[in-house]
Amino acid sequence: MSFIPAELIKKKKSGGHHSREEVAWIVRSFTNGDFKDYQMAAWAMAVWFNGMNDDETAALTEAMFRSGDHFDFSHLPAARVDKHSTGGVGDKTSLLIGPILAAAEVYTPMISGRGLGHTGGTLDKYESIPGFRVNLSRREFESYVTDHYFSVMGQTKDICPADKKLYALRDVTSTVDCLPLICASIMSKKLAESLTGLVLDVKYGSGALMKTISEARKLALLLKTTGEKNGIRVTALITNMNEPLGRFIGNAVEVQECYEILQGRSHIVNGYDFYQPTRDLSVELSAHAILLAKKSSDIVHARNLATELLVSGAALRSFEKLLEYQGPAEIQKRPVAQFSAEIKARRSGFVTNMQTEQIGLAGIELGCGRKSATDQVDHSAGIEMCVHLGEKIKSGQTLCRYFSNSQNSLVFAEAMLSQAIEIGETGCPRQSLVADTLADSRLSR
Amino acid sequence: MSFIPAELIKKKKSGGHHSREEVAWIVRSFTNGDFKDYQMAAWAMAVWFNGMNDDETAALTEAMFRSGDHFDFSHLPAARVDKHSTGGVGDKTSLLIGPILAAAEVYTPMISGRGLGHTGGTLDKYESIPGFRVNLSRREFESYVTDHYFSVMGQTKDICPADKKLYALRDVTSTVDCLPLICASIMSKKLAESLTGLVLDVKYGSGALMKTISEARKLALLLKTTGEKNGIRVTALITNMNEPLGRFIGNAVEVQECYEILQGRSHIVNGYDFYQPTRDLSVELSAHAILLAKKSSDIVHARNLATELLVSGAALRSFEKLLEYQGPAEIQKRPVAQFSAEIKARRSGFVTNMQTEQIGLAGIELGCGRKSATDQVDHSAGIEMCVHLGEKIKSGQTLCRYFSNSQNSLVFAEAMLSQAIEIGETGCPRQSLVADTLADSRLSR
Repeated sequence: MSFIPAELIKKKKSGGHHSREEVAWIVRSFTNGDFKDYQMAAWAMAVWFNGMNDDETAALTEAMFRSGDHFDFSHLPAARVDKHSTGGVGDKTSLLIGPILAAAEVYTPMISGRGLGHTGGTLDKYESIPGFRVNLSRREFESYVTDHYFSVMGQTKDICPADKKLYALRDVTSTVDCLPLICASIMSKKLAESLTGLVLDVKYGSGALMKTISEARKLALLLKTTGEKNGIRVTALITNMNEPLGRFIGNAVEVQECYEILQGRSHIVNGYDFYQPTRDLSVELSAHAILLAKKSSDIVHARNLATELLVSGAALRSFEKLLEYQGPAEIQKRPVAQFSAEIKARRSGFVTNMQTEQIGLAGIELGCGRKSATDQVDHSAGIEMCVHLGEKIKSGQTLCRYFSNSQNSLVFAEAMLSQAIEIGETGCPRQSLVADTLADSRLSR
Repeated sequence: MSFIPAELIKKKKSGGHHSREEVAWIVRSFTNGDFKDYQMAAWAMAVWFNGMNDDETAALTEAMFRSGDHFDFSHLPAARVDKHSTGGVGDKTSLLIGPILAAAEVYTPMISGRGLGHTGGTLDKYESIPGFRVNLSRREFESYVTDHYFSVMGQTKDICPADKKLYALRDVTSTVDCLPLICASIMSKKLAESLTGLVLDVKYGSGALMKTISEARKLALLLKTTGEKNGIRVTALITNMNEPLGRFIGNAVEVQECYEILQGRSHIVNGYDFYQPTRDLSVELSAHAILLAKKSSDIVHARNLATELLVSGAALRSFEKLLEYQGPAEIQKRPVAQFSAEIKARRSGFVTNMQTEQIGLAGIELGCGRKSATDQVDHSAGIEMCVHLGEKIKSGQTLCRYFSNSQNSLVFAEAMLSQAIEIGETGCPRQSLVADTLADSRLSR
C-alpha cells in the first residue's frame, strides 16, 4: 500500500488519527528515504501539537521495532524480563538488577544506552570496569543470555534504525518533548529484546524528565499500554528523583557502590545508610521482574527472594561471572580521579531541596558524561553525596565531594554544585522512594 | 547575530513571538542552508498551528524580499502601482489593467506567475500571443517600464529565492494553507517590484482559495497590513468568484476577450453582456490604482478616467504598443483548438450554483494549465461560459462550450463540467462583483 506524504501530514495536522497501515508506511518510507526528513519533521511537529492515540502510539512502536533487526529468544524455556529507567542521577540499579535476576534464573537480555543529557548511561558504567566488553556480537549476546541468564550490550546500528534516524531529527527540530514519540522510542528498543515482561522505572522529580508524579504517571501509563498492545507484560513504578539515588554519581564510583552492596556492605554516616536507596529500589524493581517472570506469585515473596539473593552472595557470584564472560574485566583496577574537592555547608539547618538535574549536569562537567557525542568520558570522575534530603546539618559540614582528572572542570562543577544543595530552617518529611506501582493487569487480578 | 535553530522552533511551537532579527536570521539561514529543510518544515508547521502576529508576518515578508534581487524604480518621477489577484477562474483583468494604467501614465511593473492549481496565470495568457516575450532581462523590463509605463515579466530565480525554496517545501509538507506564509509569499514578490502602491483583488467564493467573504477579508487585511508595514500603500477589494469571470477561461481566448473589450466590443446574449464583469472589475481595480498613484483624488473621477481610457481606445493603443516592444507579437495569429464540444442543460430552471473550482480544473484538464510543473500548456484550449449565475434557462440550452487540441481531454472535461453548473427551481438575486473595499488608510481620511 502506498500513501501521499503530504496527505498523511495533513491528516495529522487536522487532528485525524492514522491507521496502523499509515503509521507503518510512514516509518518504512522514512527509513528508506521516501518519506523525506523534512516531511518527518513536519509530521512530528503535527504530532507534538495533536498527539497520537494509544493505537497510533502502539503502531508507531511496532513499526520502529520492525524497521530493523531484533533478537528472538522465544526458544528459551522461560520468561525474558528487562528493566528500563527513564533516566536519573546516580541511577545505578541496572548494575544490581542484572545479577539479581540472573541469580533468580530470570533471562535478562539488556540492551542499554549511554549517558543522555544530565543522566548517566548503564553502558558507560559497565565500560568503566577495565576489560569489560559491551560491544558484543549478536551471537555472543545470545549465547551469554542463554547460558548465564544475563548479558548487557549497546545498541547496534541494525536495531530500530528508524528510531535512531527519528531521534536525531527530533533533537534538532524541537520535537523531543512529545509523549507518544518518547514512548515509541523507548518501547521499540525493548521489543527488539524479545521480552515477555518489562519493569519500568519512571522517575519524577527535580532530577527527572518528568517533574511531577502526575506527569510521570501519564508517561508510565502510555508506556505500559504500548507494551501491552505489543504483547509484553509491563509493570511500571513511579519513583522519586528529587535527590540523586544512593551515594555516588559517576561511572567507576557507581560500580563501586553496587559492588559493595553485592558484597553486603553499607555506608552508614550519622545513622543513615547511603547505600539503602540503591539497594531498596534495586530489590523492588527486581521483585517486580521476578513476578513478571513467574518465579514468584506474590510481591512479598518476590521481595524476600530478591533480598535473599543479594544477602546470600548469589547475586555477587552472578556479577563476578559476568565480569568473566564479558571480560575478563578487572574490577579491582578501578580508575581513580587525580583531583577532588568538597562543597561545605555555609550555614546550619536542614537539606530542604536538591537541584538534582543541576547535580547531574555538574557530573557531566566533571567528565561523567558527554556534552557532545564525540566527547570522551572520564570514568573516574564523579560526585559523592554526603548529605541526604531532610538531613539536619551543621555549618561547615561537607555536603558533597567531587572528583575529576581535569582540575579545570572542578572549578566549573563547584559553581554548579554550590547552589544545588539548598539549606533551610525546617526539616521536611522523608519522601518515599516509590510513589506508585502500576502492576501488570494480569497480576493484579 | 546567530541563533540556535531548535531554540527558534521551540519558541514558535510554544506560542512565542519572534523578533525581527530572529525572523531575518531564519530566512537568511534557510536560504544559505544553515537552517535545514527539516528545520524549516518543523517551524512552518509550528507557524501553521500557532500563527504569527502582524509584526512577525511583516518581518518574514521583508526577509524573503531581501533574500534575493529586486528592482529599484525609485528614480521614476511618479508612483509605481501594481495589481495582484489571489487567483480565480477566467480572472483576466491583468490583461486590461496594464494597458489602462499605462494609458493613465501610471508606472506598472508587473511580475507575474504561471497557472497554479485550478487558476490561470497572467504569464501563460500573455505567452499565448504568438511572439510575445515574458522572459525579459532585467534591463529590458526596467527600460520598458521607464519608457512605456507598463511591462510584464516572469519571476526570475534571483527574485525572492527564499520564497521559492519555502513554497516548494510547504507544498510537500502540508503547510500551504497558512495565512502568514501565504501573505509573506505574495507580498515579498510585490516588494521586489519597487512599488509605492498595490491594489489587491482578494477573491472569495466557489472558485477562490478563500470560500467566504470573511475568510477573504481576513487575508486581505493581513496583506494590507503587511504591505503598509513595509512602506507600500495598499487598497484591497474583496471580489466575487462564485462563477468564472466574464466569457472565457483559457489563455488565447481570455486574450481575445480582453482584446475585444479594448476595441469597445460587447458580447451580448439574451440581454446579458458576458464581457461586462471583466470590463467592470478591470475598471474598478484600475480606478483604485489610479487613486493610489495620485492621478486622481476621488474614486468617481478615477472610475470615469479608467472608463474613458478604455472607451477612447487609449488603452488599446497602449496594448498594441506592448505587443510591439514585448514582441513583435501577432495577436491575429491566435491559436485555435481543433476539437470542441458543448454541455447542454438537462432541464429548464435557473442557474443556481457554479462549482467554479471544478470548472477551473476542467480547464486544466483541457490544457489551459499544468497538472505538474513539466506539463505543456495548450494555449488554444479553453471554456466559453454561455450562461451566468441566476440566469433562467431552458432544457437543451448550451451551458458552456469547451475546446482543446486533445480529443481525449474533452472526455475528462465533460465529466467534470456536466456536474459543475447546477440548475434549480428558483432564481437567486444577482451577486455584486465587489463585496467590499478596504481602501488605503491615507485615502479614507
